[in-house]
Amino acid sequence: MKRTSSYTRKRRNAPGSPPGRWATDPAAAESHLHAMRYSTSALEEIDTLPQSTDDSTLWLNVDGLRDQALLSQIASSYGLHPLAMEDVVNLHQRPKAEDYQEHLFIVLRMPTKSEGSFASEQVALFLGHGDVITFQELPGDVFEPVRARLRNALSPIRGRGADYLTYALIDAVIDSYFPVLEKLGERIEALEDAVVLRSEPGQIADIHAIKHELRTIRSAIWPMRDLLSTLLRDDGAWFSEQTRLYLRDCHDHAFQLIDMVETYRDITSGLVDIHLSSQSNRMNEVMQVLTLIATIFIPLTFIVGVYGMNFVDMPELQWRWGYPVVMAVMTAIGVGLALWFRAKGWLGGRR
Amino acid sequence: MKRTSSYTRKRRNAPGSPPGRWATDPAAAESHLHAMRYSTSALEEIDTLPQSTDDSTLWLNVDGLRDQALLSQIASSYGLHPLAMEDVVNLHQRPKAEDYQEHLFIVLRMPTKSEGSFASEQVALFLGHGDVITFQELPGDVFEPVRARLRNALSPIRGRGADYLTYALIDAVIDSYFPVLEKLGERIEALEDAVVLRSEPGQIADIHAIKHELRTIRSAIWPMRDLLSTLLRDDGAWFSEQTRLYLRDCHDHAFQLIDMVETYRDITSGLVDIHLSSQSNRMNEVMQVLTLIATIFIPLTFIVGVYGMNFVDMPELQWRWGYPVVMAVMTAIGVGLALWFRAKGWLGGRR
Amino acid sequence: MKRTSSYTRKRRNAPGSPPGRWATDPAAAESHLHAMRYSTSALEEIDTLPQSTDDSTLWLNVDGLRDQALLSQIASSYGLHPLAMEDVVNLHQRPKAEDYQEHLFIVLRMPTKSEGSFASEQVALFLGHGDVITFQELPGDVFEPVRARLRNALSPIRGRGADYLTYALIDAVIDSYFPVLEKLGERIEALEDAVVLRSEPGQIADIHAIKHELRTIRSAIWPMRDLLSTLLRDDGAWFSEQTRLYLRDCHDHAFQLIDMVETYRDITSGLVDIHLSSQSNRMNEVMQVLTLIATIFIPLTFIVGVYGMNFVDMPELQWRWGYPVVMAVMTAIGVGLALWFRAKGWLGGRR
Amino acid sequence: MKRTSSYTRKRRNAPGSPPGRWATDPAAAESHLHAMRYSTSALEEIDTLPQSTDDSTLWLNVDGLRDQALLSQIASSYGLHPLAMEDVVNLHQRPKAEDYQEHLFIVLRMPTKSEGSFASEQVALFLGHGDVITFQELPGDVFEPVRARLRNALSPIRGRGADYLTYALIDAVIDSYFPVLEKLGERIEALEDAVVLRSEPGQIADIHAIKHELRTIRSAIWPMRDLLSTLLRDDGAWFSEQTRLYLRDCHDHAFQLIDMVETYRDITSGLVDIHLSSQSNRMNEVMQVLTLIATIFIPLTFIVGVYGMNFVDMPELQWRWGYPVVMAVMTAIGVGLALWFRAKGWLGGRR
Amino acid sequence: MKRTSSYTRKRRNAPGSPPGRWATDPAAAESHLHAMRYSTSALEEIDTLPQSTDDSTLWLNVDGLRDQALLSQIASSYGLHPLAMEDVVNLHQRPKAEDYQEHLFIVLRMPTKSEGSFASEQVALFLGHGDVITFQELPGDVFEPVRARLRNALSPIRGRGADYLTYALIDAVIDSYFPVLEKLGERIEALEDAVVLRSEPGQIADIHAIKHELRTIRSAIWPMRDLLSTLLRDDGAWFSEQTRLYLRDCHDHAFQLIDMVETYRDITSGLVDIHLSSQSNRMNEVMQVLTLIATIFIPLTFIVGVYGMNFVDMPELQWRWGYPVVMAVMTAIGVGLALWFRAKGWLGGRR
Repeated sequence: MKRTSSYTRKRRNAPGSPPGRWATDPAAAESHLHAMRYSTSALEEIDTLPQSTDDSTLWLNVDGLRDQALLSQIASSYGLHPLAMEDVVNLHQRPKAEDYQEHLFIVLRMPTKSEGSFASEQVALFLGHGDVITFQELPGDVFEPVRARLRNALSPIRGRGADYLTYALIDAVIDSYFPVLEKLGERIEALEDAVVLRSEPGQIADIHAIKHELRTIRSAIWPMRDLLSTLLRDDGAWFSEQTRLYLRDCHDHAFQLIDMVETYRDITSGLVDIHLSSQSNRMNEVMQVLTLIATIFIPLTFIVGVYGMNFVDMPELQWRWGYPVVMAVMTAIGVGLALWFRAKGWLGGRR
Repeated sequence: MKRTSSYTRKRRNAPGSPPGRWATDPAAAESHLHAMRYSTSALEEIDTLPQSTDDSTLWLNVDGLRDQALLSQIASSYGLHPLAMEDVVNLHQRPKAEDYQEHLFIVLRMPTKSEGSFASEQVALFLGHGDVITFQELPGDVFEPVRARLRNALSPIRGRGADYLTYALIDAVIDSYFPVLEKLGERIEALEDAVVLRSEPGQIADIHAIKHELRTIRSAIWPMRDLLSTLLRDDGAWFSEQTRLYLRDCHDHAFQLIDMVETYRDITSGLVDIHLSSQSNRMNEVMQVLTLIATIFIPLTFIVGVYGMNFVDMPELQWRWGYPVVMAVMTAIGVGLALWFRAKGWLGGRR
Repeated sequence: MKRTSSYTRKRRNAPGSPPGRWATDPAAAESHLHAMRYSTSALEEIDTLPQSTDDSTLWLNVDGLRDQALLSQIASSYGLHPLAMEDVVNLHQRPKAEDYQEHLFIVLRMPTKSEGSFASEQVALFLGHGDVITFQELPGDVFEPVRARLRNALSPIRGRGADYLTYALIDAVIDSYFPVLEKLGERIEALEDAVVLRSEPGQIADIHAIKHELRTIRSAIWPMRDLLSTLLRDDGAWFSEQTRLYLRDCHDHAFQLIDMVETYRDITSGLVDIHLSSQSNRMNEVMQVLTLIATIFIPLTFIVGVYGMNFVDMPELQWRWGYPVVMAVMTAIGVGLALWFRAKGWLGGRR
Repeated sequence: MKRTSSYTRKRRNAPGSPPGRWATDPAAAESHLHAMRYSTSALEEIDTLPQSTDDSTLWLNVDGLRDQALLSQIASSYGLHPLAMEDVVNLHQRPKAEDYQEHLFIVLRMPTKSEGSFASEQVALFLGHGDVITFQELPGDVFEPVRARLRNALSPIRGRGADYLTYALIDAVIDSYFPVLEKLGERIEALEDAVVLRSEPGQIADIHAIKHELRTIRSAIWPMRDLLSTLLRDDGAWFSEQTRLYLRDCHDHAFQLIDMVETYRDITSGLVDIHLSSQSNRMNEVMQVLTLIATIFIPLTFIVGVYGMNFVDMPELQWRWGYPVVMAVMTAIGVGLALWFRAKGWLGGRR
Repeated sequence: MKRTSSYTRKRRNAPGSPPGRWATDPAAAESHLHAMRYSTSALEEIDTLPQSTDDSTLWLNVDGLRDQALLSQIASSYGLHPLAMEDVVNLHQRPKAEDYQEHLFIVLRMPTKSEGSFASEQVALFLGHGDVITFQELPGDVFEPVRARLRNALSPIRGRGADYLTYALIDAVIDSYFPVLEKLGERIEALEDAVVLRSEPGQIADIHAIKHELRTIRSAIWPMRDLLSTLLRDDGAWFSEQTRLYLRDCHDHAFQLIDMVETYRDITSGLVDIHLSSQSNRMNEVMQVLTLIATIFIPLTFIVGVYGMNFVDMPELQWRWGYPVVMAVMTAIGVGLALWFRAKGWLGGRR
């Protein structure tokens, strides 16, 4: 088993250091800025910080969190709270929603398209009045379909404001877990088939690895469901009545994901039992063969030993039919024991 | 073990696609429409979309979700919300109730009459003011007794409106789980008898399969109970006082189902212990036979080996009674060991 | 193990059939009616339906639910709700309390005096204004002490009305579980002693059977405690202030029962561990004997085999002290190995 | 393992008997009365029922519950409720607090100083207006320090009234569990060391016995914590603001006790795993020795058997160096196998 | 395994002793006083009790709790409640927050920099109006960065008052668990790798030790999270609106810690399964080798035994090719059995 990911999360801020003093990580991915400013009538896409205009909606997206200057500029231009910015650059936050008056700050975890085991990156989102600012840990995301809809002049998303855009982004993140879980479900099915068919030493480690992935996914989805419950209870401050209807739908999807994860966890737990039972069964099988052979031949070997003794006065040795009789007796004993074993159900390997 | 059903659920909508834009699945079952319009005085059954009339109650049922035109026509005629329609065509929703002002949208899971393991299909139900619209995944359902009651002019259901019809349909779905669980209970009893009687390698997989079925059934019933709790708390908006009395009864049945499922889960968990103990016991049995045989004959074989040595000067070999004495000694040792084993309780197989 | 009771419960009503249309089961026990009408001054006991009088309290008890005519007559005379009557004749209801305006409908489960494992029968109780009507599944009940108190003109129960009678009946049912649990506790103690003393193959099935009984008892007591909590929260509608004081006491007893059941469940779960450990220990014991014997004699048998070879040129065979020296060497090896085993703690069976 | 205590609790009241009709148990401990009447200025200790005086506080304590006349006299003098008195004489109540208008009735469980395993006795306490009445199951208690404080004219307890005395008694009971748990903690540590060092057959029963004691202690402490929570929520009816501050402290101690109990439960559960692993490891060790010996000598014994055959035409037997060569070959095989085992890590016992 | 720490906690106060009468422990660490008085404009650090001044903030820190005179003087100077002081000197309190009108009393647990396993010391904190008083069990703490910020005239902490200082200290304690958990995470990873690679007897004890450490850490962090929830719900009494924003951040960190602990607990539980499976697998491996060798050579040894018999009339012995034929037959049998084993998948050790 290769461990799927390291459990330890490094925090860069030393314990006791002042809060709200954030600094980017020089080892983080290079920063790229992308801004989309749109209204029903127009769409503008630029790679620099946009000038503010009034009645259109702005989505400012930053991939990669290395550029301190850029992030500081955005934070000060849009009045992002230092505590929130600290969470933006300190990865491994739990998904959460925090209300900073000026902005609603939301942290999400988005699956990354990695080979091998599940991995996720942090997406930090600020919903303001007329603008949405997102910070992603890595380049590449699941938001392309949303961008495509924004570029389509006929799409209703163009006229629905920043709260609906926020919903659309959350929804894209939530829905991106479905293919991840489907792939994992297939792996679990394959492993289940293998475990039931034949116990192999490495399977327990595979089960453990899958359990670990499920744990990781679960710890990403659970808080996102809580987050959505929180947003649904929000009474009109950030989300319009209509957008809340969509959020309810999204909340429902999060619930489905949790159902799937819990089902998978239950199944993998059951696999441990099957695996142990299968190991035990395999041992039984081996022991039965050994017992069969040993039990038949040990008495016979004793008998031939008897007639290998060198006593001068062993009358059987002189008998005309001594040898054939002994051989016949031994055959009878061997066959008798074998029949007894068959009657006990010990013959025939797996049965 | 054949896996009872695949765990993976395919969603057709790509992550990030716009919400409320639903499309039927060309691979879905063929659509059939059936409408029943009834009042205390009259009943009309047609297979086309009915003209609206005022004071009678309408039940519109669609089996099979392939026909986009038909579904779109119904959705627009009756003002069904696009988000709800999306859930209608995207199967594998969790049972739930959502209030869309114009309609109360309810999703149920109904057992399908399949051979082999448990399977369920989705039933989506819209309760409006004077009409009930149901969409079923597959042809064939558990509603025939309800239809029979509707056709009976004397049945009270004819005079009780759409909310009572909704109750009757939910009740039919809930009650249809009783025979399913009874059949499963019988399988569990049979397996329990088998496991207790004699451990067999495949039983752990059978237990696992039953656990999986219980999990599937549970994940269908639990949310339906929650749904009924929600409907019971509804204060007169959708259900009359009298119908709520019936819903309480239905809620009670859902509770009984959950009790049964939890009991079965508990029992099957216990079967794993019995199975493992039984395997371990079987191994003990095998080991005891081996130990018995080996422990008796290995020392004897040593003795005959001694007198098979070719030393020129072994006085016993020349003795007149050497051979019989050695045979007698060995018999004594063999019998002694056997008696010792009996005293330790190792003789007699299963005991 | 004989399974203590079948898990499957048969419902007679087909799914989808109209609610509130109840019919007695022809296979049910024969119906017997017994009425007690009492006040502080008088007591009248008859076996027919009583004429109504105003200021006295009536307890109408029906044993056995076969007689449709009788039950219908009672239901219509006292205005019992059809949904409640349906629960009366459909056994296996969960204990519950439902308020039907005219009556408070309560379902209880009462232990039956059966040999062997725990069984319970359903008691349905209607508390009206001045009357209590009970329907029991089977003849024979735990209410005799209550009847005796009613027959005693000095007993305070005579002056306390229908709500106090209801309390007295519930209390009799709750308290009747104490002897049941005491008997079960003794069985658990006996089993515990047996498991600790010596692992036997059948014990795991015994543990499983006791677990099943505990589960059944628990599923009867838990909802009765909830029911009592509900009655305690009732604000004067059905129970007087004073009677509620008694109900609190009864609730407390239900709590004690649950404590006992949970303790027993915990103990029986622990017994599985002890049993498996004991099996494993037994196997260790057997293996040690085998290993001891085999490890001592296999090398010795090899040595005697060496001197049984027929090489013409084996000088030891000709030596004068060859035979005694070999015998002495083998004795030394055997004793040495035995001492080594003792040092490792492998001698002496159980230790 | 000796079972630490019997699980079955005998109730003397038959099911269905009238409530509030209490009678002392003739087998109970002999009753002793002790009264302390105190104020800041005076303390009076007598062994008879005191005459009432107005402004001092009275603590009436009864050890042993055999004397019906005495208990009846106290109950009627102080107006104790019959339902509460029933709980006083029926031992094995769960700790609880019940408000009977005239008195606050509290049931506690106090550890008894028994050798061997944990045992507790019931303490029933009535807090009235200016008096505290306690009934103890057995002579001997943990209240001596409180009495000492009462006898000390300078102690603040003298001036603080009945509610503070009640607190002081509850606090003494709660704190008396700390030494009990400390002793148990030492036993768990010793057992843990033993289990880790070397698996012994009886350990699982020891673990089970400790688990049982923890269960018993837990079922005494948990309800006392709930009881304290209830008293803390009481708004001035029975406890003064200042005394509630002390009760909060006491509640905190109860919480600490629960923490300790839960930690111990967790540890003992882990010991089962260690024990089973250790048993399994021991078996591995035994098997490896057997396999080592058997695998080395069985092939060698075959070889010497070959040259023990009596074929007339076996050229090796005549060779000059036949015997030494065979011996050398066998030595080589034996050493080779032993080296192979070492390479596989099977040599060296425990490793 | 060396037990990481003793479970038993000694309380010095005897049960029943008067509350609020606290005394320092002569065995405690020597007391050192350090006072920091600061405002935006000035900072004064002294090692004696400071004279009170009005508008600056005071942080009084005591390391080591041996000096009764000093503690009494502080307690009386600042009006600390005796019940709180009792908790200060009685170590092993659970983290908690208690409101004593004059002060908010907070107990924290701070990790100590010990080699080996996790240990923590108690930090008691009093937040008053303008002053913070902390009592630490041992010298050395995690507050140096906070002191550094206080010494920096430009740091905002200088102007934010006692509530912010309290936050800063709590935050420093919470954050100091991150490195502890990271180190533990590395140990778990290493152990996981070892367990998966090769089961060793001592691993179960290592798993148990880690589980114990996790339990200890968890029992420190959980109540601190609850404490922070409590402080967050506090409505302005002790913490300003702005400081509560920071406390929310701190609460979030506590949540992350709990997530990590729960994940680690889950993983270590899984390791037990892997370990047991690995042991079982190892046993299978050993058994297969034994069975292989025994099953091949036992029949062959029987055959050579046959031709070692001394019957006078055994024709095969006289045959010219008797010996080579028997050897060939035995080779065929041996090879045949080995091939059969390979076909069954028993050859090749680990596979």
